[in-house]
Amino acid sequence: MVGRCQLSRVWSDSLPQFVGDRVGLAGWLHHQRRLAQVTFVLVRDGRGISQVVVDDAELRAELASWPPETVLRVEGRVVAVPQAPAGVELHDPHFSLLALPDGPLPFELRRPRLDIQLPTLLDHAALSWRHPQQRALGRVAAAAVRGFRSALDERGFVEIQTPKLVASATEGGANVFPVDYFERPAFLAQSPQFYKQTMVGVYERVYETAPVFRAEPHDTARHLAEYLSLDAEMGFITDHRDVMALLREVLETIIGVVAAVAHESVERLQLRLPVVPAEIPSINFWDAQALLERETGKPALGEADLAPADERFLGEWAAREFHSELLFVVGYPMAKRPFYTHPDPQRPEYSNSFDLLFRGVELVTGGQRLHRYQDYLQALAGQEITPYQGYLQAFRYGMPPHGGFAIGLERLVARLAGVPNVRQVTMFPRDINRLEP
Amino acid sequence: MVGRCQLSRVWSDSLPQFVGDRVGLAGWLHHQRRLAQVTFVLVRDGRGISQVVVDDAELRAELASWPPETVLRVEGRVVAVPQAPAGVELHDPHFSLLALPDGPLPFELRRPRLDIQLPTLLDHAALSWRHPQQRALGRVAAAAVRGFRSALDERGFVEIQTPKLVASATEGGANVFPVDYFERPAFLAQSPQFYKQTMVGVYERVYETAPVFRAEPHDTARHLAEYLSLDAEMGFITDHRDVMALLREVLETIIGVVAAVAHESVERLQLRLPVVPAEIPSINFWDAQALLERETGKPALGEADLAPADERFLGEWAAREFHSELLFVVGYPMAKRPFYTHPDPQRPEYSNSFDLLFRGVELVTGGQRLHRYQDYLQALAGQEITPYQGYLQAFRYGMPPHGGFAIGLERLVARLAGVPNVRQVTMFPRDINRLEP
Repeated sequence: MVGRCQLSRVWSDSLPQFVGDRVGLAGWLHHQRRLAQVTFVLVRDGRGISQVVVDDAELRAELASWPPETVLRVEGRVVAVPQAPAGVELHDPHFSLLALPDGPLPFELRRPRLDIQLPTLLDHAALSWRHPQQRALGRVAAAAVRGFRSALDERGFVEIQTPKLVASATEGGANVFPVDYFERPAFLAQSPQFYKQTMVGVYERVYETAPVFRAEPHDTARHLAEYLSLDAEMGFITDHRDVMALLREVLETIIGVVAAVAHESVERLQLRLPVVPAEIPSINFWDAQALLERETGKPALGEADLAPADERFLGEWAAREFHSELLFVVGYPMAKRPFYTHPDPQRPEYSNSFDLLFRGVELVTGGQRLHRYQDYLQALAGQEITPYQGYLQAFRYGMPPHGGFAIGLERLVARLAGVPNVRQVTMFPRDINRLEP
Repeated sequence: MVGRCQLSRVWSDSLPQFVGDRVGLAGWLHHQRRLAQVTFVLVRDGRGISQVVVDDAELRAELASWPPETVLRVEGRVVAVPQAPAGVELHDPHFSLLALPDGPLPFELRRPRLDIQLPTLLDHAALSWRHPQQRALGRVAAAAVRGFRSALDERGFVEIQTPKLVASATEGGANVFPVDYFERPAFLAQSPQFYKQTMVGVYERVYETAPVFRAEPHDTARHLAEYLSLDAEMGFITDHRDVMALLREVLETIIGVVAAVAHESVERLQLRLPVVPAEIPSINFWDAQALLERETGKPALGEADLAPADERFLGEWAAREFHSELLFVVGYPMAKRPFYTHPDPQRPEYSNSFDLLFRGVELVTGGQRLHRYQDYLQALAGQEITPYQGYLQAFRYGMPPHGGFAIGLERLVARLAGVPNVRQVTMFPRDINRLEP
C-alpha cells in the first residue's frame, strides 16, 4: 500500500537488530528487480542498501511507475533471510512517496561499479557520488582528515584558521588567482605557509585543514586548482629530521583512523592500506639522481626537480629495496626550494627539506624554515620587501628554529584508492577547464 | 652560564612533575624582574610561563642584554616554591640563546591584560597573539570547532570539502568577490549552501568547517569579509524543528568540549559559559516585532529584518523571561529569506526558517530548504537558470526534505568571550579596510 508512513526511521545498517519488529526505513529507490510473482525493491539510505519484498499485485503495479532515485519511506516487518543482503529483508511493506526524480537519469547506479567516463562522473557529481563506491571514497577522505587532526591534537598542536585572501603570493610564481578585493588587488592563498609560521611564534605547534588555491595552467592527473591542504608546523626543532619523524607518526595515525572509522568503505573498495614503517627509508636528492641515471640510463635532470616518471621509478625502487611504499627524498638544492627554506648548515647550497613519495607520487613537501630575521632580509634581497612586511614581523619579534609540512588530501586518497586521477576522488574538482558543477 | 643546552625540553605545564630533577625548557623571554641580588626570568613556552631564578652576577649581567621575546633554551633544577607561579621554579640555570628579536617591540606582553587599541592589536598580530589572553581565545576557538565536529561525527554526519571557487553567487546580492579564473569570471563562495545540499543526496547528513567569503561593504563590529562557517545539513527531516533540535545538541557539545579541552583558557579568560537549556525558547518573527513595538515604543520594521538593537532587546527579554542566553526567532517572512527556503505549509508567505540569537546577537541561521525540482524552477522563475544548472541536478535526481544551519565561528567566540568586536578573536581579520597582515 502507498500512503503515509508513521514509524520513525531506522538506518539500513541497524536492520539486523530489529528482526521480528515492524520498522521504518527512508532513502532512495536504488533498483527494482521484478520477477514473475514478486518484486525486490532495493532501498539505499545514507549508510547502506536494504531489500524490501513486494508480493502484493496492486502495490507492485504502483511501484512499477517509480523510477530509480525516487525518494521514499517504507515500513515493514524485518525478517531474517540468510541469502538476502545483510541477512535481513523487509516484508509486508507500506510505502510513502517523498519526491520523484524529474526525467531520465544519465546513468544507472545499480551496478557494483560505476562504469562511466571521468567527464560524465564529474558533470553529474550530484548523481555519481550517490554510487556506493564513490560514497566510500568520500568516507575514506573524511576519515583521513579526522586522523590528521587527531594525531596533532594528541601532540598538543593547536588548530588555526588563516586567511585565504592575501596581499601577496605565498609561494611566488605565476600560478596565483587574482581577486577583486573592494576594488583593490588581492590573491587567493597558495598555502597557509606565512601564517602557520607566524603562529608557531604563538603556540609552537599548529595545524590547519583548509583549501588552498593554485592556478595550475596544465591539466594533469595530479593537480587541482583548489585542494585541501593538511598543514602542520612546529617550533624548537633541531632540523628537518624532527619534522620527518612527526610526519611519520601523523601518517601512521591517518592510516589507523581510516582502518578503524571507515572500515566498511575500505572493504568495499578493497583498499590495500600501506604499512607505515617504524623508519621511512630516505634517499638524498643527488643520490636519487645518480641512481636514476645508473638504472634508467637517462641523464639526470641536475638542478631540476624529479619528473613524475622519476618518482614512479623511485617508488618501485623503495618497494623493492626496503619493502616500503613510502620514501623520503631529502636535501633538495636550495635553488629548487622557496625562499623560506633553511639550508643544510654543512652544505649551504643544499636544503634541510624533503618530499615524501607515496606509491611513486609526491604526497608531502616539508622541511626546516629560516627563523632569523636577518636571514629573511638576505633571502629576500633584491625583491620588493613591502609585500612581506606582515610576514617578517614574526621573525623581528623572535622565532625559534621550526619546520613543517603539507599533505594534499586528494592525492593521498587517490593513492590509497589506487585511482590514476585526483579528480575521481574530488567531489567538485576545479581546474583550468572546470568550474562546475 | 650561557652555552649549549643538552637536555631535551619539557613543557612548562609539566614542571611540577620534575621537582628535584634537572630539566630543559624552551621558549621566549617573557619578562625579567631584576632585584638587587637576584633576577627572576619568566620564560613563556607554547603552554605557559615558568620562573627561572638567576643569582649569579655574571649571568645576570649577560641576561640584562637580552630583550623580551628573545628565543632561548634553559636548563636548571626544578625546586618546589609555594609562592612561585605553578608552585615551582628553576634554579642554577644554564641558558642558550636561539634568536634575538630585531629592534624594540611595539608593546609589552608582560602585563596580565594586553591594554592596546584594536588597530595596534591587529597590525601586530604576530606579537599580540603571543599574549596569554589572546592565546587563550585561539584555544577556545579551536575547542569550539572540535566540539562541532565531534557532535556531528557521533551522529553519523560525513565531513565534506566543497569548492570555494564557484561560477555563480551562492547567496545572491552584491557582496560577492570576483576572481579572475584563468581569464574567465568566477566568484568566491559566500557559503557552501548549494554543495552541502547536493551532498545530502549522497550521505543524508554532512558537515563542513571551512572559510566563506562576503564582500561586506560596511565596517561593523560583527562582520568579516572572510570567516569560518560551521555548516551542517541533514535529510529526511519533518521540518525546521528537527534542524533546531540538532542545533541545540551541537551547541551543547560545543560548550561541553570547550569546558573540557580548553578549561585553562576558560579559567584564564574567566569565561562564563552558557547553559544550553533542554529546550531553547523560541519566538515567532511577528510576535517579536509586536513585542518590540509594545516594549520599546519603536515602530516594527515590518518585512525588514531585526536590527542589531532589536536582537539585543530580544536577548535581554529571553534572559529575563526564560533565564536563557539563547533564543530562536522562527517564521521569518519568505521575502526576507533566500530562494531555497521552504515555506511554512500553513502560511506560505512565512518560512520554515530560524535564526538563533546568542546573548543578543544573531549567531546561527538555518531552516528547511525546498527539495522538489519543480519548486526550485518556480522559485527561480524570472531569473537566469543557467548559473544554477549544476545545483538543480541534485533535485532533478530526487532529494528528500532537508535542512541545515551555519554557525559563524568568530561570532560564537566573541560572544563566549564577551568582546564587542569579532576582530578581537580573529587572528588575521579581513574587511573592507584590512587585507594585512
